[in-house]
Amino acid sequence: MADPGIVLGANQYGKAEVRLVRIDRDGPRHRVTDLDVTSQLRGDFTAAHTEGDNSRIVATDTQKNTVFAFAREGVGTPEEFLLRLGGHFTGEFDWVTGGRWEAEQYTWNRIPVGGEGHDHSFVRGGTEIRTAVVTFVGAEPTVISGLRDLAVLKSAGSEFHGFVRDRYTTLAETDDRILATSVTARWRYRSLEVEFDEAFADVRRLLLEAFAETHSLALQQTLYEMGRRVLEARSEIDEIRFSMPNLHHFAVDLTGFGLDNPNEVFYAADRPYGLIEATVLREGVTGDHPAWQGIAGFC
Amino acid sequence: MADPGIVLGANQYGKAEVRLVRIDRDGPRHRVTDLDVTSQLRGDFTAAHTEGDNSRIVATDTQKNTVFAFAREGVGTPEEFLLRLGGHFTGEFDWVTGGRWEAEQYTWNRIPVGGEGHDHSFVRGGTEIRTAVVTFVGAEPTVISGLRDLAVLKSAGSEFHGFVRDRYTTLAETDDRILATSVTARWRYRSLEVEFDEAFADVRRLLLEAFAETHSLALQQTLYEMGRRVLEARSEIDEIRFSMPNLHHFAVDLTGFGLDNPNEVFYAADRPYGLIEATVLREGVTGDHPAWQGIAGFC
Amino acid sequence: MADPGIVLGANQYGKAEVRLVRIDRDGPRHRVTDLDVTSQLRGDFTAAHTEGDNSRIVATDTQKNTVFAFAREGVGTPEEFLLRLGGHFTGEFDWVTGGRWEAEQYTWNRIPVGGEGHDHSFVRGGTEIRTAVVTFVGAEPTVISGLRDLAVLKSAGSEFHGFVRDRYTTLAETDDRILATSVTARWRYRSLEVEFDEAFADVRRLLLEAFAETHSLALQQTLYEMGRRVLEARSEIDEIRFSMPNLHHFAVDLTGFGLDNPNEVFYAADRPYGLIEATVLREGVTGDHPAWQGIAGFC
Amino acid sequence: MADPGIVLGANQYGKAEVRLVRIDRDGPRHRVTDLDVTSQLRGDFTAAHTEGDNSRIVATDTQKNTVFAFAREGVGTPEEFLLRLGGHFTGEFDWVTGGRWEAEQYTWNRIPVGGEGHDHSFVRGGTEIRTAVVTFVGAEPTVISGLRDLAVLKSAGSEFHGFVRDRYTTLAETDDRILATSVTARWRYRSLEVEFDEAFADVRRLLLEAFAETHSLALQQTLYEMGRRVLEARSEIDEIRFSMPNLHHFAVDLTGFGLDNPNEVFYAADRPYGLIEATVLREGVTGDHPAWQGIAGFC
Repeated sequence: MADPGIVLGANQYGKAEVRLVRIDRDGPRHRVTDLDVTSQLRGDFTAAHTEGDNSRIVATDTQKNTVFAFAREGVGTPEEFLLRLGGHFTGEFDWVTGGRWEAEQYTWNRIPVGGEGHDHSFVRGGTEIRTAVVTFVGAEPTVISGLRDLAVLKSAGSEFHGFVRDRYTTLAETDDRILATSVTARWRYRSLEVEFDEAFADVRRLLLEAFAETHSLALQQTLYEMGRRVLEARSEIDEIRFSMPNLHHFAVDLTGFGLDNPNEVFYAADRPYGLIEATVLREGVTGDHPAWQGIAGFC
Repeated sequence: MADPGIVLGANQYGKAEVRLVRIDRDGPRHRVTDLDVTSQLRGDFTAAHTEGDNSRIVATDTQKNTVFAFAREGVGTPEEFLLRLGGHFTGEFDWVTGGRWEAEQYTWNRIPVGGEGHDHSFVRGGTEIRTAVVTFVGAEPTVISGLRDLAVLKSAGSEFHGFVRDRYTTLAETDDRILATSVTARWRYRSLEVEFDEAFADVRRLLLEAFAETHSLALQQTLYEMGRRVLEARSEIDEIRFSMPNLHHFAVDLTGFGLDNPNEVFYAADRPYGLIEATVLREGVTGDHPAWQGIAGFC
Repeated sequence: MADPGIVLGANQYGKAEVRLVRIDRDGPRHRVTDLDVTSQLRGDFTAAHTEGDNSRIVATDTQKNTVFAFAREGVGTPEEFLLRLGGHFTGEFDWVTGGRWEAEQYTWNRIPVGGEGHDHSFVRGGTEIRTAVVTFVGAEPTVISGLRDLAVLKSAGSEFHGFVRDRYTTLAETDDRILATSVTARWRYRSLEVEFDEAFADVRRLLLEAFAETHSLALQQTLYEMGRRVLEARSEIDEIRFSMPNLHHFAVDLTGFGLDNPNEVFYAADRPYGLIEATVLREGVTGDHPAWQGIAGFC
Repeated sequence: MADPGIVLGANQYGKAEVRLVRIDRDGPRHRVTDLDVTSQLRGDFTAAHTEGDNSRIVATDTQKNTVFAFAREGVGTPEEFLLRLGGHFTGEFDWVTGGRWEAEQYTWNRIPVGGEGHDHSFVRGGTEIRTAVVTFVGAEPTVISGLRDLAVLKSAGSEFHGFVRDRYTTLAETDDRILATSVTARWRYRSLEVEFDEAFADVRRLLLEAFAETHSLALQQTLYEMGRRVLEARSEIDEIRFSMPNLHHFAVDLTGFGLDNPNEVFYAADRPYGLIEATVLREGVTGDHPAWQGIAGFC
């Protein structure tokens, strides 16, 4: 089936979306870790592609089993768990020269009963999801942490004017609009010496505060300020990328009904939406680290 | 186009999913009300169906406009807003003999900045959604409030045994399993003399507490206890219905890898799932109130 | 846990969304039946709810096993398969006094190779899904067949005018608009003496033809004509219900750019949408058959 | 707001998911083009980010207007339409040094009436979606065409054995399994001298035939053969990338019920799934063309 002049290029394979729930139950007060884990191996798998020779294929089923088996010893942070998985696969099979391990984490809060969080009963937290991607090139891992679907809205403190007007421009300038977005952010750590849970919580807080406190002249400006604050506060982060839709809320024209509308009644549109994507990074850092490959959105 | 022996039966029409966001901004501390509103009229619309005669059709576009116009005067609770809409349409057009108005409400919490909630910056709350359905039969409204997608999980205090064993039964009995569900609940108020926001918050609290505190021998038992507590505490509610998937978390068999699994490592399955649906109601209340028609799930 | 004055009302339980794929492979030319099956039992399950006594609970896991075991003998049409399941559960357990069995079916077409359909390679068909609901009251089954997500669009032959104009009306009248909808239709058979596959194909054809051929003055009119044709042609069907969104396509105003728009450029809106729901039935048939309970949309 | 040492990196912005429907109606036989268009500009937008200075911002609303205005002159193939858009924006504004224009296209087939396709009534085609991405670097465009969600299934002619067995391997070898996937494929054209509609239809046919005709020893092998055939037949294509989930269909163990299962009854699992991603390309072509940046999945 080989063909002169046609060859296999870059490739990876694995098991996607292993829904792992780990309960830490060493005492009466349980902890829940709820993850969606994807494992993908890179290396020399040419024979499987060109000849159907699976002798180097670590079955995706085996990768799934490994995820569950490794969880027996505890999960910890998603970043640490992915680092363990990547270390195992790249260490165990010499033709596996790298790979990509990814997780999404869902939040569970304790149900309040009588003013206190219950020991073993939980309710799902906010809509946003914590993300982690660990890439190995050989034995060298890179960690990109993040979050997605963090929906935020400002009902004041947002303007938009001074933009280009051409033949196709109809948008009016405004000094008072709703600004709403659903933040996807991913940040790359310079090293592995990170307290991942603490860092995540702090970055999330910084992002929310920057969104709240920035008087916005453009969503781009808000985005940049969110990134700037993170890099300023967290020296272990080299760069942060954002993909932020501008979720339009249009003030409804009520004049036909004899009513004014002092920016109180809005229609929340689904599509189309603005889409603002940018990287904020430290001077001297090149923005093309290979760990970003294959992540949707701007790169 | 009329046909001897073929006739129009029950019918309704309107505008679905009007995405209304109302900002209350009478002072610096704004409030956000974020709704998805559906308006459907019932009455004599036979001519539109059989002859394309629209002389009795209040256009769905007009219904949408009315939603926005009514929001100018404020929204209040979703239940009150739907009552106003229903009163308008059934009062204004004498051939509109009833209808159904529905809303979903999304939660926005203030972003904490410096230990306090920000005046005009918000972050989406939990994954669950508050629901309301108001049905008019003539001028008589009925209110059904509810919530959906309230995901909860117990990592202890759940057993399942003593069930029927037949030729097709393979499930093992257990005295320790994860119990997880995503609660859809809807409750019907006896009257309109209700503080809807306070009642909603209290029912939500009662549901969560009942889930947490009930030592469960069956999801049916947990469901019933959740309903019982609501009816016991809230005299204005006549009945409550639940649709609760049993979201299976299977303990992974790790023995093949030389590992035990003392209920710590679970696989969270998507499909199939158990589905438990039931009504809890006061003695003497008939469970077939017409306001339930057209609501998905058991009725 | 029993409470004076609070009681269990209507209830049902079972396994939802059993993803069953059956391959008929008695010869080289295979057939694929791809179903999503839900089984729900009704009867006396009070003790499970009020006391956690499962002695009458046929586990949802057992219901799932039964679905797979019954598929061993072949599936046939979804309606026949559900009838077998319902007959089993209501026949086997005397406290199971009824229930509801539901299926969705996905279409697979043979991949054309060299002008002919391949023996055992298939590609998914259209976006629409065939549906079936079989309800047992005691040993008496009722069959409701249907389809959903059948998206259709007319670029001519649709008008909308003559509707009510009130204070909130801004919509212009039109004698040329795009008419687009995604049909959900469900029809109830009078008896079980039906060739379900043939009837389904014929109803689908009749619906499409009626949509195409009806010069539409209102979506209600198109809906009614679709139902009328089905009842006229298929005497075994007593009534048919529709839920049809009016998927708005707005002609874009290009005058600001010095361009006209003779109904050629449209914006396809997501939300809100019109929603038209109605039943067409034979004279003398009451429209409140209990088999409709729990089906979403108008009833 | 500038910060020593923190800078803006790569960025782009625009309007996403403009739902454009174009009707060609120069005669009674209409044609429908149904697109979801995204426009994103790249260039020097630093001041908007760091200072909220929008003097170089072509508003996303203007980009949307341009999409609709350009459709007035006809759309043609999605690739040609995106090339026109990209040429306009990079030509009109000298600080716009490139960008990315993307479209998804939905299929509409004529409704058959009396054995012929209707002039102006249409039904949605299969579940798969045609895709196009056009990237401009300066005035230089690159076209990547593709499709996604092309679901295919083989009920014979698929084996999987000979894979690595380690401590975590439990999967049995098989010489008869269902092979099912949902193909996402994207191919990069070497030049713009392409009949895009003809090429798309031919690539789709080649992919389906290769899937059907390949006796599969691994999904990797099937993928490679699909790519090989495309490159062999279409000299204008330099490389093709695939992201193909292995949608597991597990033969159900019926032995507990006294039944065998000669690969006839399957459970179709949702998650986890295998995920196979690879590029097939011509020798000498480097696989890192910048037009792939930001496309989800392997790159």
